[in-house]
Amino acid sequence: MFVTFEGPEGSGKTSQIIPLVNTLRQKGYKVFATREPGGTTIGDQIRQVLTRLDNKSMNPRTEILLFCASRAQLVDETITPRLEKGEIVLCDRFTDSTLAYQGYGHGLDLDFLRRLLNFATNGIKPDLTLLLDVDPEMGLRRRINSGGEWNRLDAYELAFHQRVRQGYLKMAQEEPDRWVVVDAGQTPEKVQAVLQKSLLNHLEMFKKRQKKGS
Amino acid sequence: MFVTFEGPEGSGKTSQIIPLVNTLRQKGYKVFATREPGGTTIGDQIRQVLTRLDNKSMNPRTEILLFCASRAQLVDETITPRLEKGEIVLCDRFTDSTLAYQGYGHGLDLDFLRRLLNFATNGIKPDLTLLLDVDPEMGLRRRINSGGEWNRLDAYELAFHQRVRQGYLKMAQEEPDRWVVVDAGQTPEKVQAVLQKSLLNHLEMFKKRQKKGS
Repeated sequence: MFVTFEGPEGSGKTSQIIPLVNTLRQKGYKVFATREPGGTTIGDQIRQVLTRLDNKSMNPRTEILLFCASRAQLVDETITPRLEKGEIVLCDRFTDSTLAYQGYGHGLDLDFLRRLLNFATNGIKPDLTLLLDVDPEMGLRRRINSGGEWNRLDAYELAFHQRVRQGYLKMAQEEPDRWVVVDAGQTPEKVQAVLQKSLLNHLEMFKKRQKKGS
Repeated sequence: MFVTFEGPEGSGKTSQIIPLVNTLRQKGYKVFATREPGGTTIGDQIRQVLTRLDNKSMNPRTEILLFCASRAQLVDETITPRLEKGEIVLCDRFTDSTLAYQGYGHGLDLDFLRRLLNFATNGIKPDLTLLLDVDPEMGLRRRINSGGEWNRLDAYELAFHQRVRQGYLKMAQEEPDRWVVVDAGQTPEKVQAVLQKSLLNHLEMFKKRQKKGS
């Protein structure tokens, strides 16, 4: 089963994955957790190009294409072979991040992005996507209440992050069988409990479907 | 004016560009010659990922996406700004290489490739494309006549390079105003003379069009 985690920076996504891996392993599952970009030797080289501080002149199209290149390598080298061996693969961000940020956020053509992602991933799709949902206004309001000032960039940033959030929620609505929306405004313990429950539920359903299919 | 050079490896393409640059400079033109992949700091980092010998596990989709990423950067950082300043930009291979090799040669979906390339290049197109055309059978036949043996790989390779050549010729036929097909089976001096003549002719036409347009 292929599981992806989506949501904004600061939603606690990444730190929720480790305890989930441990729980699944304790239950006897073979689990592999990976992240984007990177996750392979070639992907790590691409990640370096993406993250080098002196690469400030990188244009947004180069960036998307590098993300997709790293993803293509991760799919063929890691995700697909492990899924074929029956492992559970957990991935911190995947194609839906590109759709949410570049598509819904920056307004790039969604239809083209879907074709590009389909090419990069060789058509592979997550069986389950866990969305850690937070209202972007919440974080900002907290800052202002504690004495910070509102500025033009905040307004721009807020509008962008609201478009990203709406994009995520729209995708979740369009494919309710694949997506689970988790309120990431709760305590980390509560979020972990909801994630665990969703994941184990879907795993049971997945196993039943596999048995029917075989 | 934006000029690209296309054709198979061994067609002498690269070594024809230097004397052309010199001729144009002697005539007082500002000329800039570049190559793919690479040509920018970020592009050179991508080129390194593409050419590292230990990156043997790179899949073809990663490769295309890296080529496109490097190209996106080259267009925005070098080609477009120099064209806007009125310079002549000569580029050793461009989008038509991807269409010929990955599309016609390896059979990837041409319509998707065109959209991908259009995205990478932000819609920029060459004003003139000089195709150095050679029959791939010629090189092979020479080798066999001089005592080499014909093998299964030769048949495969030959068929591939014939598809690439036919792809190039088809594109040239579809856009006769942009393409000039040059017989690269002639001596390098004759090829250089034909290239010079074509380039200077097109430059005159280009200047007339620019004047009309302004």
